[in-house]
Formats: sequence, C-alpha cells, structure tokens
Amino acid sequence: MAASGPVHEALAALPLVDHHCHGAVTADLSGTEFASLLTEGAAWPDVSPFDSPVGLAVRRHCAPLLDLPRHAPPADYVARRAELGWREVNRRFLTAAGAGVFCVDTGYAPHPLTSPAELGAAAGTAACEVVRLEQIAESVAARGVEADEYAAVFRTAAEEAVRRPGVVAVKSVAAYRTGFALDPERPAGAEVTEAARHWLARGGRLTDPVLVRHLLWTAVELGLPLQLHTGFGDADVRLHRADPALLTDWLHRTAGTIPVLLLHCWPYHRQAAYLAAVFEQVYLDVGLALHYTGPARCRAVLEEALEITPFRKLLYSSDAYGVSEFHHLGALCFRQGLADLLQERVDADEFGLADALRIAAWTGRDNARRLYGPPVSEPARDSSGRPTRKV
Amino acid sequence: MAASGPVHEALAALPLVDHHCHGAVTADLSGTEFASLLTEGAAWPDVSPFDSPVGLAVRRHCAPLLDLPRHAPPADYVARRAELGWREVNRRFLTAAGAGVFCVDTGYAPHPLTSPAELGAAAGTAACEVVRLEQIAESVAARGVEADEYAAVFRTAAEEAVRRPGVVAVKSVAAYRTGFALDPERPAGAEVTEAARHWLARGGRLTDPVLVRHLLWTAVELGLPLQLHTGFGDADVRLHRADPALLTDWLHRTAGTIPVLLLHCWPYHRQAAYLAAVFEQVYLDVGLALHYTGPARCRAVLEEALEITPFRKLLYSSDAYGVSEFHHLGALCFRQGLADLLQERVDADEFGLADALRIAAWTGRDNARRLYGPPVSEPARDSSGRPTRKV
Amino acid sequence: MAASGPVHEALAALPLVDHHCHGAVTADLSGTEFASLLTEGAAWPDVSPFDSPVGLAVRRHCAPLLDLPRHAPPADYVARRAELGWREVNRRFLTAAGAGVFCVDTGYAPHPLTSPAELGAAAGTAACEVVRLEQIAESVAARGVEADEYAAVFRTAAEEAVRRPGVVAVKSVAAYRTGFALDPERPAGAEVTEAARHWLARGGRLTDPVLVRHLLWTAVELGLPLQLHTGFGDADVRLHRADPALLTDWLHRTAGTIPVLLLHCWPYHRQAAYLAAVFEQVYLDVGLALHYTGPARCRAVLEEALEITPFRKLLYSSDAYGVSEFHHLGALCFRQGLADLLQERVDADEFGLADALRIAAWTGRDNARRLYGPPVSEPARDSSGRPTRKV
Repeated sequence: MAASGPVHEALAALPLVDHHCHGAVTADLSGTEFASLLTEGAAWPDVSPFDSPVGLAVRRHCAPLLDLPRHAPPADYVARRAELGWREVNRRFLTAAGAGVFCVDTGYAPHPLTSPAELGAAAGTAACEVVRLEQIAESVAARGVEADEYAAVFRTAAEEAVRRPGVVAVKSVAAYRTGFALDPERPAGAEVTEAARHWLARGGRLTDPVLVRHLLWTAVELGLPLQLHTGFGDADVRLHRADPALLTDWLHRTAGTIPVLLLHCWPYHRQAAYLAAVFEQVYLDVGLALHYTGPARCRAVLEEALEITPFRKLLYSSDAYGVSEFHHLGALCFRQGLADLLQERVDADEFGLADALRIAAWTGRDNARRLYGPPVSEPARDSSGRPTRKV
Repeated sequence: MAASGPVHEALAALPLVDHHCHGAVTADLSGTEFASLLTEGAAWPDVSPFDSPVGLAVRRHCAPLLDLPRHAPPADYVARRAELGWREVNRRFLTAAGAGVFCVDTGYAPHPLTSPAELGAAAGTAACEVVRLEQIAESVAARGVEADEYAAVFRTAAEEAVRRPGVVAVKSVAAYRTGFALDPERPAGAEVTEAARHWLARGGRLTDPVLVRHLLWTAVELGLPLQLHTGFGDADVRLHRADPALLTDWLHRTAGTIPVLLLHCWPYHRQAAYLAAVFEQVYLDVGLALHYTGPARCRAVLEEALEITPFRKLLYSSDAYGVSEFHHLGALCFRQGLADLLQERVDADEFGLADALRIAAWTGRDNARRLYGPPVSEPARDSSGRPTRKV
Repeated sequence: MAASGPVHEALAALPLVDHHCHGAVTADLSGTEFASLLTEGAAWPDVSPFDSPVGLAVRRHCAPLLDLPRHAPPADYVARRAELGWREVNRRFLTAAGAGVFCVDTGYAPHPLTSPAELGAAAGTAACEVVRLEQIAESVAARGVEADEYAAVFRTAAEEAVRRPGVVAVKSVAAYRTGFALDPERPAGAEVTEAARHWLARGGRLTDPVLVRHLLWTAVELGLPLQLHTGFGDADVRLHRADPALLTDWLHRTAGTIPVLLLHCWPYHRQAAYLAAVFEQVYLDVGLALHYTGPARCRAVLEEALEITPFRKLLYSSDAYGVSEFHHLGALCFRQGLADLLQERVDADEFGLADALRIAAWTGRDNARRLYGPPVSEPARDSSGRPTRKV
C-alpha cells in the first residue's frame, strides 16, 4: 500500500492546513483513559479499542515516535506514553503532523485540553480558532436571558466570539441536535421567542428545531465560513439524519452568502461530493474518517470523496480530539492516501504531474488558505515570529 | 489503470448502444460557455470546471482528438475547439464514440442542440428518440386545456409523440420534480382533475405530486420502456429523494407492465442493482457517472454497480449533454472500465473468457437491443442505407 | 485475485461458525427449481439466474466439487447435480464449507429443508438453532388467542421455543414487515391488545407496527442474542427502510440488555459498522452479500464493512438458503476475501501477522463463540460424539 514518487515527496514537504481539529489532553492518561479516547464508542470491558483499525494504526505508526517498535503491544504503548509524559507525547505527535496551521474547535472540552495557542506552541506552528455556535447559545442560556431577547443576545455573543483574535470560522453540530431534515426557511422572530421560552424553561442542550434553524441562519449573518458536522461521529448522532444531502434546500436559500464546509461526511462522502460539485459555496473534507479507517482504507475513502469533487473543494482536516496521535495519524493518512491515489494516476498518464502536484497543494493547504484568508493564509510562524518553514 | 487483452479488443470493436444521451450544441462556444457545459454546477468565478475529474479527463482523452497533446492546457483546448468549429468537433468526438445507435432525449434543450438525426449524421450512425413526458405535459398546459380534460389530452399528446418514427422510449424526470417518495397508487381521475386545476391556474413546471404520479402511470399505459432519472444530476435534484429504492412500492404495482430503466443511479447504484436483481422489469446504467468520475474511477463505479446485478440488466449510456466530448468520454470510460474489470476476472480464472465476452456484448449493446427492439436492434446504417459496420 | 500466505492457511484450517444460515433443500431440483433458488428475484423467462455474479461463482467454484470442469455450462451443472442426488450434493458442499457449527434459522421454509440436525449430520459437524420470532407470533395467532392474551401467550410460546435444546438466538425480520423507522419505545399493554385485536381479526402476516415493536421488546426480555435482517433481501423488502441506522433510538433504549446482530447489511454495511463501533451490544456480518457478490467482489464488501468496525464485532455467516452451494460459497468467499485483505496489510507492514491471525480467528469463529456461548463455543462433534477436528 505504501508507494513513493514525486507526489509523495511534495505532500511530505507540504505544511498542511488542518482546518478542523480539537485540542490534545493536558494530562497523563491511564490505560483505560487512553483507550477510551481511541474510540467514538466507549472503553467496553470485552472489546479493547486497540482491537480496531485505528488501534492497529496507532501501534504501527505512532509507536515508533515513542521509540517503540512498530506494532508494539498496547500495554507497552500505554506505559511508554505515561513515561514520556503528556507534554513530550503531544510535542512529538503534533510536530510530526507537519501542519502549518491548526484550526481548533474550542467548543467541546469534556477533558482538559490544549488551547489553540498551546496546541500551536507544542507543534511549533500557528493555530487559529473555530467557534462552536451551540456552545455560545448554551452559554447565553446559562447566564440567563429573557426569551424575547434570546435572538439578539445570542447574535451579539456570537459576534463578540468571532471578533476574538485568531477566529476564522464558526461551527455547528446541528447534525447531532436535530439532524438536517429541518425546515430550510429562516424562522420568524416570534417563533424563535416562543421556542426560546420553552428551552429556557426546560434547560439542557439546544435541541429545539426552531432554535437550531435560527442558529444556522445566525451563522449566515455572521459572515464567516460555517463548518458543519456531517455523518460519522459518536453514538449521539442519528447517522441517517446527518446525511448532508438533507441540507439541499437550505443550501439553495443561502447560496451567495457564506462558505459551508461539510466535515467528515463518511459514509455520505459521495453525497457531500455531489453538493460540492453543484453548489459554489460548498466544500468538504473526510476528517475523522482518515484516522478511524486508517492507512489501509483512507485512500479508498479519498477516492470516493474525489470521484466528482472539484479539486478546489476538498480540504484537509484531522478532526483529532484528545490524543495527539490523531493529529499525526490524520496527516499521515491524508498524505499517504492522497499521494498514492495521485501518483498512480500520474503513472497511468491519466493526470499530468503538474496537475497532480497542484491538486495535492490545493487540497492539503491552499483551498483552506483561500477560503479562510488570514491568519490561515499567512506563513506559519514560531513563537519568535519567524516563519517556521518555507511555504 | 489501462490494461489490455481480448475483452478490451472486443469492447473496442463493439458498436455500443448509447441508450440515453442528449444532443450536442450546434454553435461555437466561448471558453466560459464551454466550461459551464463541463459541470453539473455552474462556471463559478474561482473554481474552473477544468479543475475537476471530468476536466482532467477532457484534457487527457479529448485533446488528442483535436490534434493537441495529452493534458493540453484549458486555454489551448478552448482555442483549438473554436478553431475547428463545432461541426468538426462534433464529428470527431461522435465518430470516436463508436456507437452503433444513440437514443436521444429530446425534451431538454436550453441550448441549440443537434436533433437525433443530426447527431446520427455527425456520428455516421443511427439515432433514435426518447420522449420526455414532462415536456409533453407542459406543452399541453402551455397550449391551454381544461382541467377535466388534462388527463385525456396529455395521454393523447403522449401517444402521438411516441408514434413519431424512431421513438423507442419515454423518460421522466420525476426525481427532479417531486422525488420518488410518492404514493405508489394510480391517482383517481377526480384527483388528477383537481391537481390539474391548480397547476393550470398557477403555471410553471409540472411539480404537483398527483400529476407526477399520473405521468408515471400514463407511461405504464403507453407501453414503451420508461427511462427514469435517478441519483446524480444538477443542483435542482434532492439527491436523497432520487434514491431508486423509494420506487419499490410502485415497482410492485407495475410489475408485468413496462420495462423501467434506472438512469445514472450514482451514488445509489447499489440500491439500483438490488432492484434490478429482484424485479424482472428493472434495468440500470451508470451514465453521467462514467465521464464525471472519469477513467480513474468509472471502473470502481461499474464494479459496485455489477456486484449483484444480473448481467442482462446493465445497459450503457453516456447521458452526454451539450459537448460531444461527453459522448466520447462516456464510451471510453465504459469500455475501459468494463474491460479492465472483466479481463482481471478472466485472468484470475473467476470468469471464463466466453462469459466475459458475452457480458461485454450484452451490457454494451445487446441488452438495449433486446429491450428496445427495432430500430435500436437493427444494424446501424449510414445515410445511404448501408450498414456502417459489422454488428 | 487469489493470493496466498499464512493468513490464507490459517483461515483455510479454521472451522468457521456460520452464525446465520438456513437449511438445504431435501429434494432433487429441476433446472428451473435450482435456478430460482440461485436468485433473490425469481426465475424469469429471459434472464437466467446463472447470468449473474453468483451464477458464475457457482459454475467456477462449485462445479469442481461435482466433478465437473471449472466454468461448466449451466445445463451440465444441473444435470450432474440431479445425477448425484440431493443427499450427495449436500454432503459435498456442506463438508466443503469447513464449518465447525451452523446456526440455522428454522423459521422460513417454503421448501422442504434439512433440519439443523440433518444439516449438521450432512456436514459432519454441529448445528444449533435460531428461532424466528415472527413465526412464533404467527403460530400463536393461527392457533387462536384472545387479543388481551396475545402478549402473554406470545411471550410464553417464545420462551418455550428458546428453551428447546440447541437454540442459541432469536431472529426478527422486522426489516421486511415494517422497516426500522419505528417508534423506539416499548408499546403499552393496551396498545398491544388493540393492535392484536385488529391483526387477529384481519389475519395474515404480522405487519402491524405496534406488534412488530412489541416483538422486538419481547426479544429483549428473552435475553438471547437477537439477529436482525438488515439491508439486502428479496423483493419483499423496502431497502431504504432496512437501513440499520434507523435502529439508533431503539439501540439507545436497549443498551445493556441483549446483543444485537445486524445480518447482511449490504448496501448499508458502513452504517452497520458505525453502529458496531459506538454501541457495545451491536455486531454485524455481511452474509448473503458474500456469495451474491461472489469472489470477485466480496473482498471489497469486507473492506468497507471493516473500515471502522472493531475486530471483535464482525461475525461470519453465509445466510445460505436452499442450495448447499451457498453454504460452501459463503465460506469460500469469506475465507478468500478476508485472507486477501489481511495478508495484503501484513505484507504492507500495516498489520502485524499475529494481529492478522487473531482477526481471522475472531471474525471467523471466536466472536460467535464468545457471543453465543455453548453449544456454539463447544468443539464440533460428529454423530458418535467425537470432536470432528481440532478447534
């Protein structure tokens, strides 16, 4: 499965833009804690998360970075990880990821996690922030607000959040909360007030369909690119309601406004590719699926994702959460899978080499730079302000 | 990816039946006009349709037919195309397609297009016609009709249309208008009248669910094979509502009547294959997906489409529209993808060579001949009435 | 496509647990009868079931076991099958399957079929039973019961059925009857009585949504593993309603109770893999799809099914029905597809050999043993009580 050639070399040297990831845990992890972070499920008594594609990928591709042999046993892996300590582990994997910029979703943190700045510092590169809108809305509710002021207060809070330095995008997990089979119309003010009244009385997470619609339309008003979780995730998602094709009517109504980035997409990456092919504002990635399917299958997923996708519409993300192994594995899988795919087409004379190299640079870095602009589009700098590598 | 062997030779020599395509534009095209015809999206300012799988396929496989080097730059391609003029361009690509017959959907023509006869003449081969039923219905409405006469007048108009010489099938774009999650029952006359009353008062395209159902049931009465758009198309489709599995109840009710040909199908080609495997009257193709996914991936799509499909149930179509490059590319992708797939199975001793050759001839030509009968099943003749090639 | 190596050798020697199959016909079959058993469709006049992927697989891989050359013509195949007689044919294929245990669904028998004991005897191995709950419910209705006693009588009948020696699981075909888009809640007693009243008055198959939900919740109370048909089947299924993702809400409510085994899954095997990755109690197989897609494609299906599936969550089944060719072909396809996939990863140094061998043993045998316990987990014994092979 491993091949090599000019496309591999180019991708190895390319500082990726990881346009959607999370922080790494800032604590040493027990074996159980580490294992539970390896899976979108949980650490079940009888099924070790190591006994999965991603578990084997960690033992194969991460163990050597901890000075262990390839395919090291799980117990050795966990012990060595603890021995090195979380700072050194994070430094090694985040550096190895070879990213120029990380765009970090800061709205989900059940564990103690690196801030974007800490993640960037550990990697010796830049980091930007992605603001999760559900978290803003829930903070507004938690602080207390009258139902008829909810819309305005949420809007103001979101505007303030995205004005923070380094914020480049907003994100919604509407896929988890209601799914995408929503009324595509912008809800009227009175509807929002009424829905807010019920939610504020009831409390809990934002799951009201009117308020989720309102959140998506608020994203349109904010004007920043909107990242949307689609497809694969944890047990909280209803997969069939996270099919991005369900967004079509909403995409028609919001055409000409903000870019919409469909995250993960698997197993609906072909549906996402269709949307990216016919809607100017739609982009996709296959983050999360890269490290979960692992080096043995991420090429196949990329092949499907790229079947009809315009080459300026695919981005790279790891969607790594918690363990920095995933920031590294995502990058490794993307580079290897994409390079294998492109080099084979060059070798078969289907693609010219120059075209293949452009596609590699576009999807790994330049599409994100064009879309997000500064600071994503600026050269990565180290803590002294010097560019960390030629870009 | 390019291989060779007896199956490749057989498919290269086989005059395909392209059982569903459209005309080619009868005008010289500017760069922007040409680019906009390359995509199911639109020609967006920042994303050239050339930067897509089909764009690279055009530069790789079509440029040489215009006397350009493989992978010629887009500007050179467009300039050379203009230099040659549309007649010569069409002649070259349509001839290169190596089709014995083209079945041409004449019901969608936002550009000036070749008629079936003109397409056939440019290719030096035969051409038949496919009548689009929505177009008939909308013509009936445009000419003026009373609501209570709509059903009868539409039926008569459709009967007249299919009696035209060379008409071999009807087509519906119900997938675009309502999707397939329709009540499967034949609507009662009073329902049709009531729905017609509203539509005729409102005007516009035929999108009423009762009238779309009525149109599908009218197709059953006409008795000709019915081609149905499913899956992939332009931004007007709601992909998830164009999943052909949604037709199951209707297929049960219409079993034993007309053949139903599921067009395109991607990304629901496995669902279409299931229907073809369990309903005697159901057939499928992966037209449109062939040239849009391109030579690098059309084999993979064919492999999935053929996983469980009976070999008498898959047909070839290009679904080319507008640019004759697509009539050529569809044929090239089909021949190469299918030959690679079959030859590899012969080489692995999974299929006997004789079986592989039969499958190639069936899917490329004979299934369509058997299904449509004359004139599709007659040898292609040139304008002097002589068979154009051994068939 | 055929490769070899240590994983192939290990899988060739492994006595598989075929955790879901049906009996083989105990009668000699005419050509038409045999052909009709080759397809999930029917034996149509113009489309021979031999002209399909499974038909070619039978001629390639089954003909030699009947002393015919590979790729023998259908007529020769049918004649030789008749000449040998059904007992000898079954003995040859069932022995060749190399199963240690067959788990036989006894609830669907439109043909005269081997009992589990007869199947085991013909194979020289053990056989267990899977009780189909719809069949129990319909027997209860057929024997006559008052509506307000239906729930209790069904429950008692199901308890009695699963106490029979050798019963290891229950099965539901809810996918066929209503699909999975059901209210996930346990229905109240009064609802069940009311629904039973209508059903008992109306007769026919159990298709009432309340009673299907009640049946699934009764399975939870029985405490045995529950096998669920999902995805691919005959024309009676509505494929899109058999997507296992639709079960998510029900799986949340039943977490911590019984294991749920998603059968077949194709073309929703990625959706099933997602569920197996995030729900502790969920397992899957790709039975039925193995022999229907055949040796040329079952590896591809397995690759997709294993993209994210924990390796303790995939099981082997043939879902063979009627012709013992399918018990053999399922096993052959599984062994070859899985071995090719694993050996290639070992060769690429993605998986260690020891890991690959564990995965082969787990998925082919040990996951089923762990899940079902005795008698599945006991060594297979012949009719004299001696273990038939080292396990």
